[in-house]
Amino acid sequence: MFITRKAEFSASHTCRIESLSDAQNFHLYGEESNRSGHGHNYTVEVTLEGEPDPITGMVMDLKELKEILEREIVEPMDHRFLNFEVPPFDKVVPTTANVAAEIWKRLSGTLHGESYRLARVRLFEGPDTYVDITNGVRP
Amino acid sequence: MFITRKAEFSASHTCRIESLSDAQNFHLYGEESNRSGHGHNYTVEVTLEGEPDPITGMVMDLKELKEILEREIVEPMDHRFLNFEVPPFDKVVPTTANVAAEIWKRLSGTLHGESYRLARVRLFEGPDTYVDITNGVRP
Amino acid sequence: MFITRKAEFSASHTCRIESLSDAQNFHLYGEESNRSGHGHNYTVEVTLEGEPDPITGMVMDLKELKEILEREIVEPMDHRFLNFEVPPFDKVVPTTANVAAEIWKRLSGTLHGESYRLARVRLFEGPDTYVDITNGVRP
Amino acid sequence: MFITRKAEFSASHTCRIESLSDAQNFHLYGEESNRSGHGHNYTVEVTLEGEPDPITGMVMDLKELKEILEREIVEPMDHRFLNFEVPPFDKVVPTTANVAAEIWKRLSGTLHGESYRLARVRLFEGPDTYVDITNGVRP
Amino acid sequence: MFITRKAEFSASHTCRIESLSDAQNFHLYGEESNRSGHGHNYTVEVTLEGEPDPITGMVMDLKELKEILEREIVEPMDHRFLNFEVPPFDKVVPTTANVAAEIWKRLSGTLHGESYRLARVRLFEGPDTYVDITNGVRP
Amino acid sequence: MFITRKAEFSASHTCRIESLSDAQNFHLYGEESNRSGHGHNYTVEVTLEGEPDPITGMVMDLKELKEILEREIVEPMDHRFLNFEVPPFDKVVPTTANVAAEIWKRLSGTLHGESYRLARVRLFEGPDTYVDITNGVRP
Repeated sequence: MFITRKAEFSASHTCRIESLSDAQNFHLYGEESNRSGHGHNYTVEVTLEGEPDPITGMVMDLKELKEILEREIVEPMDHRFLNFEVPPFDKVVPTTANVAAEIWKRLSGTLHGESYRLARVRLFEGPDTYVDITNGVRP
Repeated sequence: MFITRKAEFSASHTCRIESLSDAQNFHLYGEESNRSGHGHNYTVEVTLEGEPDPITGMVMDLKELKEILEREIVEPMDHRFLNFEVPPFDKVVPTTANVAAEIWKRLSGTLHGESYRLARVRLFEGPDTYVDITNGVRP
Repeated sequence: MFITRKAEFSASHTCRIESLSDAQNFHLYGEESNRSGHGHNYTVEVTLEGEPDPITGMVMDLKELKEILEREIVEPMDHRFLNFEVPPFDKVVPTTANVAAEIWKRLSGTLHGESYRLARVRLFEGPDTYVDITNGVRP
Repeated sequence: MFITRKAEFSASHTCRIESLSDAQNFHLYGEESNRSGHGHNYTVEVTLEGEPDPITGMVMDLKELKEILEREIVEPMDHRFLNFEVPPFDKVVPTTANVAAEIWKRLSGTLHGESYRLARVRLFEGPDTYVDITNGVRP
Repeated sequence: MFITRKAEFSASHTCRIESLSDAQNFHLYGEESNRSGHGHNYTVEVTLEGEPDPITGMVMDLKELKEILEREIVEPMDHRFLNFEVPPFDKVVPTTANVAAEIWKRLSGTLHGESYRLARVRLFEGPDTYVDITNGVRP
Repeated sequence: MFITRKAEFSASHTCRIESLSDAQNFHLYGEESNRSGHGHNYTVEVTLEGEPDPITGMVMDLKELKEILEREIVEPMDHRFLNFEVPPFDKVVPTTANVAAEIWKRLSGTLHGESYRLARVRLFEGPDTYVDITNGVRP
């Protein structure tokens, strides 16, 4: 069984490789390479795999899950310019794929218990594009 | 190939273990433990796995699928207080996980044919939380 | 200029006039008259009319608006059975129209300032039905 | 890792087997068998599986993906009557399952690179029904 | 007070003036002028203006409203090719504006009672375009 | 009659009055005052008021409306940091109210014809907050 919870944050980013020229970055990333940055309302869906406790009927305490998402993801990333304020995006280009990978990394250290484990992180950059990272299988 | 169809129902529930005190239930379930109950617009997505018939191009007759969802899920659960009116929720706490498991149980007995079988039940309790049950693989 | 903010709450209700029989209530309200109640994820949109301050660019402090919606609407109504726990719905049938009217009443006493006033309350009972109350004009 | 991008097109179709009578087609497809056709706003989600390039952070150039979806799917299917204008639907009944299979076929020839491959096509016929085709695993 | 209810239908249409050439129609309507037609999932929102009955709390019986929308709009337009099967669209170009006007005309004869009247018809042709017709005021 | 079309753009902004301290800006704008900026997927809905041409059934050529929105709003604002790259937001705080007012100003000079005029601009900063500007009436 899988249980999924959503969270949202608003952030700025720019996609640029500093060793490349503006023209080369534009060729790679298009408008995403604008130096001043631009922003998104990101939506993240976090999925846990586990079995519900036979007494409580809960895979995980959803109040606790909400607090973890708030502490690990929303608080550090919301209303931030990712490249300047959220490591490792001073060194790693904050494409949707890389932001999702960072969210997976931050959560996988926290979201494992006796009865559940992190199964998927889905990150929407907007209504038309999203990235999935899973624990070894396809979405 | 997989084909998915949605259905909706509105229901009340409360999450409480009767042998526990109000304070203990609040500790476990938070506001969900309010004795009088509260409600949701539930959305259920039912996914079948199968191959389309080479002549008709259909995995299953969608008119029939709609009737089965109506008869097995919507009719018995819509506009009900789950704990009082929909067994086994007189004995089993109607968390989202347990309601999804009950929907899986009710459908898996009906939704299997020569060319298809039930692959996933996804239950949304609201826009931010959902549960998946699958036939042995991850979502 | 108008600024609108959404809030959400989950609640149970039943639509019944106690002096009527079950059959008469069913005739009036259909499945909504089920005595045990059922529930919804309600969404409320609150609209203020005013002009933005020429310095700050704000019609109203949105942080304050969020706190007022939380205190006046979400905290008292979320995870409640409206008929039993939220006056006046012990005496007034909690149809969508009457719940919207109660929200208007609760907010109109608080949401008026020198530079803005309450212009509209929109209440969704689900994705397909909503009610608007406005300060004297059509939606 | 998986990256998904949406595209939309509006098209007409009718579901009929020409060797059958109107009554037989109605029995099979219901209102979908109306000879004059009817239409949908189709939404297609295309998912690639791959790893982001360690320098660019991209699984695939999303500008190029958008162009491929435009060229292979939207341009030939948007604002068309599928049965009359989009082969093979002159010979194959354009059920949602068959349209999804055709989209998979058109994209799988193009969407494979050194670092990624086509993992899933999801086609929504409307808000309540969708089909998934995957590269060998469940959704 | 205003109460709004949604309904949906799927239909085909083409936007052409028969006395004009294909090129002239394309100049006017773009891809919408394709002779074979194309289709949409239309969503219509119907708004009534009135005051809730002081006893029942209802502006209008929503079960009856649902039946009227079904009978007057969904049944005659769903799964139809508007130009060929739904008068007056054999003579009137079924632009979103004209379809909305026809829906207003069909409903305004039925949706008026002692305590309510038709206030607005909103028709979505898709997620990005909609038309409003109101009883004399702006939306 | 009113016809509405949506457009989307992604942008960064920060809400700060430069003559105030960080603490004073935080008191006014909360997290929105973060100096580095943050971002949103903005959605703008533009509504025209007019009557459909009796021959063509169109209030305005929607292809032309789309081009105007692209040229006047999306092209200059999409993938930009509003405070640094989009006047007057070097001098005017880009709150949702002020961005909506600027969009109104940019469009009202262009969107008026013999048969239609600009009736409303609605700007969503995200799913929970939006601003309406109208030509003299309430939304």
